[in-house]
Amino acid sequence: MAPSTTKQWTVTGTEKGFDGLEYGDVPVPKVGDSDVLVKINGASLNYRDLIIPQGLYPFPTKFPVAACSDGAGEVVEVGPRVTRFKPGDKVVTLFNQGHQFGAFHAAAGTTGLGGAVDGTLRQYGTFDESGLVHAPQNLNAIEASTLTCAGLTAWNALYGLKPLLPGQWVLVQGTGGVSLFGLQFAKAAGAKVIATSSSADKCEQLKKLGADHVINYREDTSWGATAKKLTPGEAGVDHVIEVGGAGTLEQSVEAIKFEGVISIIGFLGGAKPKVTALDALMHICTFRGVYVGPRSMLEDMCRSVEANDIHPVLDPKIFSLDQAKEAYQYMWDKKHFGKVAIKIE
Amino acid sequence: MAPSTTKQWTVTGTEKGFDGLEYGDVPVPKVGDSDVLVKINGASLNYRDLIIPQGLYPFPTKFPVAACSDGAGEVVEVGPRVTRFKPGDKVVTLFNQGHQFGAFHAAAGTTGLGGAVDGTLRQYGTFDESGLVHAPQNLNAIEASTLTCAGLTAWNALYGLKPLLPGQWVLVQGTGGVSLFGLQFAKAAGAKVIATSSSADKCEQLKKLGADHVINYREDTSWGATAKKLTPGEAGVDHVIEVGGAGTLEQSVEAIKFEGVISIIGFLGGAKPKVTALDALMHICTFRGVYVGPRSMLEDMCRSVEANDIHPVLDPKIFSLDQAKEAYQYMWDKKHFGKVAIKIE
Amino acid sequence: MAPSTTKQWTVTGTEKGFDGLEYGDVPVPKVGDSDVLVKINGASLNYRDLIIPQGLYPFPTKFPVAACSDGAGEVVEVGPRVTRFKPGDKVVTLFNQGHQFGAFHAAAGTTGLGGAVDGTLRQYGTFDESGLVHAPQNLNAIEASTLTCAGLTAWNALYGLKPLLPGQWVLVQGTGGVSLFGLQFAKAAGAKVIATSSSADKCEQLKKLGADHVINYREDTSWGATAKKLTPGEAGVDHVIEVGGAGTLEQSVEAIKFEGVISIIGFLGGAKPKVTALDALMHICTFRGVYVGPRSMLEDMCRSVEANDIHPVLDPKIFSLDQAKEAYQYMWDKKHFGKVAIKIE
Amino acid sequence: MAPSTTKQWTVTGTEKGFDGLEYGDVPVPKVGDSDVLVKINGASLNYRDLIIPQGLYPFPTKFPVAACSDGAGEVVEVGPRVTRFKPGDKVVTLFNQGHQFGAFHAAAGTTGLGGAVDGTLRQYGTFDESGLVHAPQNLNAIEASTLTCAGLTAWNALYGLKPLLPGQWVLVQGTGGVSLFGLQFAKAAGAKVIATSSSADKCEQLKKLGADHVINYREDTSWGATAKKLTPGEAGVDHVIEVGGAGTLEQSVEAIKFEGVISIIGFLGGAKPKVTALDALMHICTFRGVYVGPRSMLEDMCRSVEANDIHPVLDPKIFSLDQAKEAYQYMWDKKHFGKVAIKIE
Repeated sequence: MAPSTTKQWTVTGTEKGFDGLEYGDVPVPKVGDSDVLVKINGASLNYRDLIIPQGLYPFPTKFPVAACSDGAGEVVEVGPRVTRFKPGDKVVTLFNQGHQFGAFHAAAGTTGLGGAVDGTLRQYGTFDESGLVHAPQNLNAIEASTLTCAGLTAWNALYGLKPLLPGQWVLVQGTGGVSLFGLQFAKAAGAKVIATSSSADKCEQLKKLGADHVINYREDTSWGATAKKLTPGEAGVDHVIEVGGAGTLEQSVEAIKFEGVISIIGFLGGAKPKVTALDALMHICTFRGVYVGPRSMLEDMCRSVEANDIHPVLDPKIFSLDQAKEAYQYMWDKKHFGKVAIKIE
Repeated sequence: MAPSTTKQWTVTGTEKGFDGLEYGDVPVPKVGDSDVLVKINGASLNYRDLIIPQGLYPFPTKFPVAACSDGAGEVVEVGPRVTRFKPGDKVVTLFNQGHQFGAFHAAAGTTGLGGAVDGTLRQYGTFDESGLVHAPQNLNAIEASTLTCAGLTAWNALYGLKPLLPGQWVLVQGTGGVSLFGLQFAKAAGAKVIATSSSADKCEQLKKLGADHVINYREDTSWGATAKKLTPGEAGVDHVIEVGGAGTLEQSVEAIKFEGVISIIGFLGGAKPKVTALDALMHICTFRGVYVGPRSMLEDMCRSVEANDIHPVLDPKIFSLDQAKEAYQYMWDKKHFGKVAIKIE
Repeated sequence: MAPSTTKQWTVTGTEKGFDGLEYGDVPVPKVGDSDVLVKINGASLNYRDLIIPQGLYPFPTKFPVAACSDGAGEVVEVGPRVTRFKPGDKVVTLFNQGHQFGAFHAAAGTTGLGGAVDGTLRQYGTFDESGLVHAPQNLNAIEASTLTCAGLTAWNALYGLKPLLPGQWVLVQGTGGVSLFGLQFAKAAGAKVIATSSSADKCEQLKKLGADHVINYREDTSWGATAKKLTPGEAGVDHVIEVGGAGTLEQSVEAIKFEGVISIIGFLGGAKPKVTALDALMHICTFRGVYVGPRSMLEDMCRSVEANDIHPVLDPKIFSLDQAKEAYQYMWDKKHFGKVAIKIE
Repeated sequence: MAPSTTKQWTVTGTEKGFDGLEYGDVPVPKVGDSDVLVKINGASLNYRDLIIPQGLYPFPTKFPVAACSDGAGEVVEVGPRVTRFKPGDKVVTLFNQGHQFGAFHAAAGTTGLGGAVDGTLRQYGTFDESGLVHAPQNLNAIEASTLTCAGLTAWNALYGLKPLLPGQWVLVQGTGGVSLFGLQFAKAAGAKVIATSSSADKCEQLKKLGADHVINYREDTSWGATAKKLTPGEAGVDHVIEVGGAGTLEQSVEAIKFEGVISIIGFLGGAKPKVTALDALMHICTFRGVYVGPRSMLEDMCRSVEANDIHPVLDPKIFSLDQAKEAYQYMWDKKHFGKVAIKIE
């Protein structure tokens, strides 16, 4: 049985910055007919979690809101109409709770965990059963929590439009969460992977994760052309997971194969890119904006994570729930390699 | 039997502009093992044909070259290894002769009719049998000739990445060849179509061709938002056939549905668009460059043209072969509505 | 506001045959958090509804159960967590309430309306919002009610595995609900249709509905080969909607194109067919069992029904709710052409 | 340069059985415009090669014909219009030389190597360039030769209709060539594989090849249900590669997941199966006949073979060209595990 109160980090909306995160006890929500009460055991951070308290997130929010989208834990109690879960089941949260299948739509956009609806940075939470999926059995809760946003985004990039085939080539950039998942998913699926990074150390780690080729983008500023040369017939890569740092798009279009897909994921880089929509014609390729994904894909992805025993890359430093604000700062300072995760007891 | 010589328009490459087009008699080429000798009865012009003699075409060319990519006619003779055609068959040319199936590739780019290899502005020509398809039986040669480039481009836009479903919404811009084919193909396939144009007259013609809604873009400069409002739930259109006039992309991204596809076709408009690749993420949509298409699609398209008795829209003024240079000028002066075609006797 | 009781036809499960259908007043169910209370205005019958009271239905049932899967009406009230509907909205029921997207699965099989859960043969009913879709605006409730089972089955056959393309050929058999929808959907989508029937009269009606060719299967017992000859190059039809009468499969494999799909829908015919699974190899084709479909497809289908103003074919005799047992008998006696429908006041 | 004559095994068609195979010197064919002259270095046998000399092959043949479909070697000379190959390139043959893309069609059926047109059991042969693909660089010619028929058939089964996703489950039967390729391709693509065999020894070898589970079908006669129980949620396998031994289909339908695909490959087993086309509905699954595949798929497959360094399983006994008749007998006597291959010097 669940207690009546739960520790929770709340984005108050009244103060900008990480001081807008408030830690305290709140009542455990009531379990509605279709609800699942989850003891959350792990959460992880995404860049969007960092900018929500700063008021910079371009999607709908309501304040106060329990922070964070990514979470995993164990089912404690289920409402009378729940059919897919029972107490004891291990679960992972769906990012946009209302995005069940097919294309993203406006209504789904008002159901983002930790932004528009209460999220995962708490010990206990209730979720409509349609907002959860069964966790891969090979992962602990901390690992599983990273699948919600970064994992699903990478999967959607590779499978949401032109499904990756074994033997195709994928280019991933840097060592952010989506890029590392992209690398792992692509390797598990029999693809070849070229990864870029800024240091010999990180390049080494990327190789350990399975990258077939690594390029240090500081040493090789025309790494797009270099990537292309690595592919059979120098035809280019089939997929780029473009995380949007300054100047990366200019290289991505050099690397892409005719009719390949450049999945545009992030908006970290400040400056407006020089690459316009017309470059899709100049390079005969596709630019696709990817915004997480639906439950149907999360289920497909979990099946592959389990079947291939994929373990998400976690930063070695794991935070406890009361240290969450430090975790935000740690990630903001870019001290991490892999997902910044929080263990919730 | 074919005569030994044929009238032909040749792009000499020695002079820029339409004076680089030379009319004269040349020998009818020999019929190789896999060749089909075609009496060409119709040809039609595309914008790229106009810029090839001007030296502005961004794809491979070799000069001198028999002009034009679009042609249709009747098989006169076949080489000993030809299996798909026999004398008397009606045929249409494939734009990139080496683009048989799947994605565009560099080798296919060196086989563009009327650019890299001899084209259709002549009475007789030989083509490898893989560079021809059977013409739809409902069309005469002049009509059929328009399928090669504009028809196939429109089909590829609608079916090459995310196949159009009945009940979806398509936005086409203006009255160019690709746009009109897009309109006709979409209507035949049970989709809804919004078309834009600059005059009441043309809007009327677009309605006659089946457009469900027309928007005069001179009167309604925020026609992208207007188009979106016309769709169910104001969710936006599933497909835009973007022909790239100045400022159209800015409107297209306003009209597009989440995860819809903006097919980028033309590069008529001079100025660099403000819409960058990142807008694919901002609008959660896809920009796809479309460059004609493979034989497999041309065959699919011809089947639909025949089954739905689609008749390409021809400009009322039909030119004769010796008037071809006038036809070029007529199109250059934008006097046409529908395809500019040439009857070849 | 809804009244406290509703007229309802209940399958009691205590008596076999249509006498197992009981008419009476029952309380209107309470509106749960995610529930939608619907004033049902139309229902329609499927063969499976006829065999459920006879205890012959091979899928899960629970008795007593409100009869029928097919229904349409108007939203009266919504639970506090409902987001997709509001009072006044026109809705259609989803056959397997739990089949939301993707492949059919065992859990979905326990949510069949009018079999495993309460159905539509009543004035008022509540449904989880995920078990309803918006009705096409061009249909009245009686027409809309026919989409649930026959409509969606036909759509799934044409779009669920190898999506129908304009210009392809479809063969439909007889004048049952799925076949007529198959005919209408295929025509709206720009396909060619061959229909079979047993009388000149019905053949005439099929032509009026748009069939390009009709074959009287009593007069032409090798109608499979005849159908094949009608197709371009005598290559065969791309899709067969196989409703499983005696001996039809033997003809369907004669009609099918290489790599075409024979969608197996019904199990009306008694005898075991001679066509074995190995015939899929002998004819290099695909046999696919189709069992209605998910909500995602029902939404796609409704969009096409509305866009193409498709009106389901109703038998001219419309029954009232109190006459429902007579409607069952009427359909059992095969007196109908088109869907047998019930108007519910 | 090639010599003027080549050793060749010819199926004479005048005698039934392996005595209908004649070994001798024939002229090396002339190199036509689009031809590639290949020094064949390896060939391998398929069951269909064994029954062609026996007159039992159900597809078109012409006699005399150079035997065998499967071959790999090195380009010696190319015709003047060849664009995809140059001397020194390593190549693999395409089974149906005319099957370039899309669905199988009747014309492609008249171009089967070693049946309708001259095959690979010879030192030198010419092939139209469209009938060859580049060999994966990780294979020697003997290994590469096995891709033509067994490899491509397995690939088509997994990717030709419902493309295999990582994390899905595949069931393969026995240790024939197609089954072993299916196992290897599925594992390389991140799928789970259940394999069946008749002996502990072979089960051990299947495990070494990567099978996640093996079932000895002699010990477990209800292996279909056993396989289903191994899958997540006991939902069944997504793909079965059904090679058609007696009684296997009855088990395959027990193992298949709802909407899974049973690819029907072989027709080794004599008796007519009890499983009829209607069982596709009873089990809500798909039966698909698979007949090798087009060039487009052979290219996709070779890319994966190379990227994943897949080495086809060869029987340890490699025959020389003059021993080919013994190779036929060896395979006929079922003494092999893996492909029976012939080294051609």
